[in-house]
Amino acid sequence: MIYFDHASATPVDPEVLEVMLPFFSEHYANPSSLHLAGQKSRAAVDKARMKIAEYLGVQPTEVYFCASGTESCNWALVGVMEPLLLRGQQAHLIVSEIEHSAVLGAAKFLEESYATPVTYLPVDKNGRVSPEDLRNALRPDTALVSIMTVNNEIGTVQPIRELSDICKENGVLMHTDACQAIGFIPLDIQELGVDLLTINASKIYGPKGIGALYVRESISISSWTKGGPQEFKKRAGTENVSAIVGFEKAVELANRHYKDLNIYVTELRDTMWKRLQESISEIVLNGEMEHRAPNNLNIWIKGVDGETLVKRMDLAGFAFSTGSACTSGEVTPSHVLMGIGRDIDAAKSSIRITLGKGNNAKEVQQFIETLTKVVDELRKA
Amino acid sequence: MIYFDHASATPVDPEVLEVMLPFFSEHYANPSSLHLAGQKSRAAVDKARMKIAEYLGVQPTEVYFCASGTESCNWALVGVMEPLLLRGQQAHLIVSEIEHSAVLGAAKFLEESYATPVTYLPVDKNGRVSPEDLRNALRPDTALVSIMTVNNEIGTVQPIRELSDICKENGVLMHTDACQAIGFIPLDIQELGVDLLTINASKIYGPKGIGALYVRESISISSWTKGGPQEFKKRAGTENVSAIVGFEKAVELANRHYKDLNIYVTELRDTMWKRLQESISEIVLNGEMEHRAPNNLNIWIKGVDGETLVKRMDLAGFAFSTGSACTSGEVTPSHVLMGIGRDIDAAKSSIRITLGKGNNAKEVQQFIETLTKVVDELRKA
Repeated sequence: MIYFDHASATPVDPEVLEVMLPFFSEHYANPSSLHLAGQKSRAAVDKARMKIAEYLGVQPTEVYFCASGTESCNWALVGVMEPLLLRGQQAHLIVSEIEHSAVLGAAKFLEESYATPVTYLPVDKNGRVSPEDLRNALRPDTALVSIMTVNNEIGTVQPIRELSDICKENGVLMHTDACQAIGFIPLDIQELGVDLLTINASKIYGPKGIGALYVRESISISSWTKGGPQEFKKRAGTENVSAIVGFEKAVELANRHYKDLNIYVTELRDTMWKRLQESISEIVLNGEMEHRAPNNLNIWIKGVDGETLVKRMDLAGFAFSTGSACTSGEVTPSHVLMGIGRDIDAAKSSIRITLGKGNNAKEVQQFIETLTKVVDELRKA
Repeated sequence: MIYFDHASATPVDPEVLEVMLPFFSEHYANPSSLHLAGQKSRAAVDKARMKIAEYLGVQPTEVYFCASGTESCNWALVGVMEPLLLRGQQAHLIVSEIEHSAVLGAAKFLEESYATPVTYLPVDKNGRVSPEDLRNALRPDTALVSIMTVNNEIGTVQPIRELSDICKENGVLMHTDACQAIGFIPLDIQELGVDLLTINASKIYGPKGIGALYVRESISISSWTKGGPQEFKKRAGTENVSAIVGFEKAVELANRHYKDLNIYVTELRDTMWKRLQESISEIVLNGEMEHRAPNNLNIWIKGVDGETLVKRMDLAGFAFSTGSACTSGEVTPSHVLMGIGRDIDAAKSSIRITLGKGNNAKEVQQFIETLTKVVDELRKA
């Protein structure tokens, strides 16, 4: 199988798995246990938190581990907004209309449960949020803005610093979902200027089932799970030690290699796009090449059903995606592609290719040849 | 190290780790992906759900995976109660006063956020809830009862069937936290008669970071994380495939071996208790031997500080616990020991030994000899 679906999931790097392994059957004690075995687990969790905090340029006490990017996004939105709403305070929320479902789902929950006013910021034809639109959407009661760093479907990189500056000027908190950014962009919180940030491991060659939420120390956020005193009393439940340790290693590798990875996948991606344009007619890039994750190619192949194409290519040994993998069980067209102005037909004729460090030029060449053939067949049929 | 802290955490069984391994770096695709690689992950999750459902005697659609026992308990309580409370309905909750912090924490959250009336049922000197007490505590607005199957500190087995019968007669839903029961008691839902049930993997030689909530099909429970359509649209976020597969294997092994394990640890435990009574004066069992998890020994050693004892024994190579490991970072005495009528001094002089399948008679003998010596020293000092 040739795998071009790295925005959906990445293989666990052997170096990551190696550091995880001892924490299954050897160093398995509960980090909350008093004994040395427990303290060994505790030290591993503490070290991972410290290292990840270092990478983000924040304090370890500002990093909370949780089970996924989705949980982290939910926690950011609900954890900031719900305490206000439960006190009967009016609190306005702003998100972009092309956020991941983890943010949109939490926004919808707040809207439906508390009648919270939510503004869904539109994006331009390339998926970018306009800082001016954000400024205009702010209200005296705006409590939180959540705009993703990099879009998961079309790879658009948002002007996070400009947006966070506007939030700061207006005393409004800002969260960003950086799950698709972490492998490619150095996530320095001082640079980004955000107050809350979501990352997870499964997009950067780490294990599934582990994410983190950065929360600036001055911010009051409600606890997610209630019970034991784990995660500074903010998320009860025994720490997932092996996954946390693997997350640390994945972040370390991402941090060490992101420049090389950027160059490597950009070249593969650009070659792919150039040759595809030469060999397949009527294909259109969704979004633009500027302000785009280096591994992302999302293309509209006119007159071809994306799902059929994915399945045919799959049988030929190529794994990639239509729209967003997270919603591929659904029949609705991608809200991101609709958001940048594509119609339903165009959205349904689009595919997403996301490259990773394991890919190479030969795979790209094979892909182009096969895709060209299959598109040709489908268009003739 | 000789490990007697299996109620805190268990080593991952080599058979469990073996089935997990291919799902890190080989079969790593997102179960939501359309392609065959994704469908392989999907099939693994579906099979695990089916097998665990089979063990519980329920439908696969009634089993929701989540990240921990704590999350599962939180979800049960908040997921049933919050929709009612958000609608402005009065909804009464009943829990026992010796529940795990995961249930008590969720109850406290509902109490504080919505002014939900919560009844904390007392227990007798052995930690048992009286069915009569439950009957008397029921009110016309009681929406949910949550009583654990087996207590995590003193191992008390509750009369779940009697309690669930009372709930059923009165049209009240019942949840049970069965995290400490699953390795020793066959969790047949028809037998238990409960409507919601919590289990996790990390107490049965499975990985940390994975739990499940059983919810009877007829029950409306709100979603936990919001976003993607995972877990029948009830818990958004990419499935933790390797952990789910490991959970399945751990449940399978627990199901296959629970009778033998019961006999094995009961014999070790009873031998330990008999000899400890012979060699150490003034020791008292917390709880009774009847209605007790077979691997649990919780003893009050008069005149000895439990924490000091745990640390001294730890240096001698024995890992066990004072009170509950989940709250051992806290200075407050165990609410369970206080609940069965011990005073603060007695609670602070108590230790918990929980045996596992890796323990043996020689370890027990070594433990008795060392404990006797250390207790003697501490008492003399």
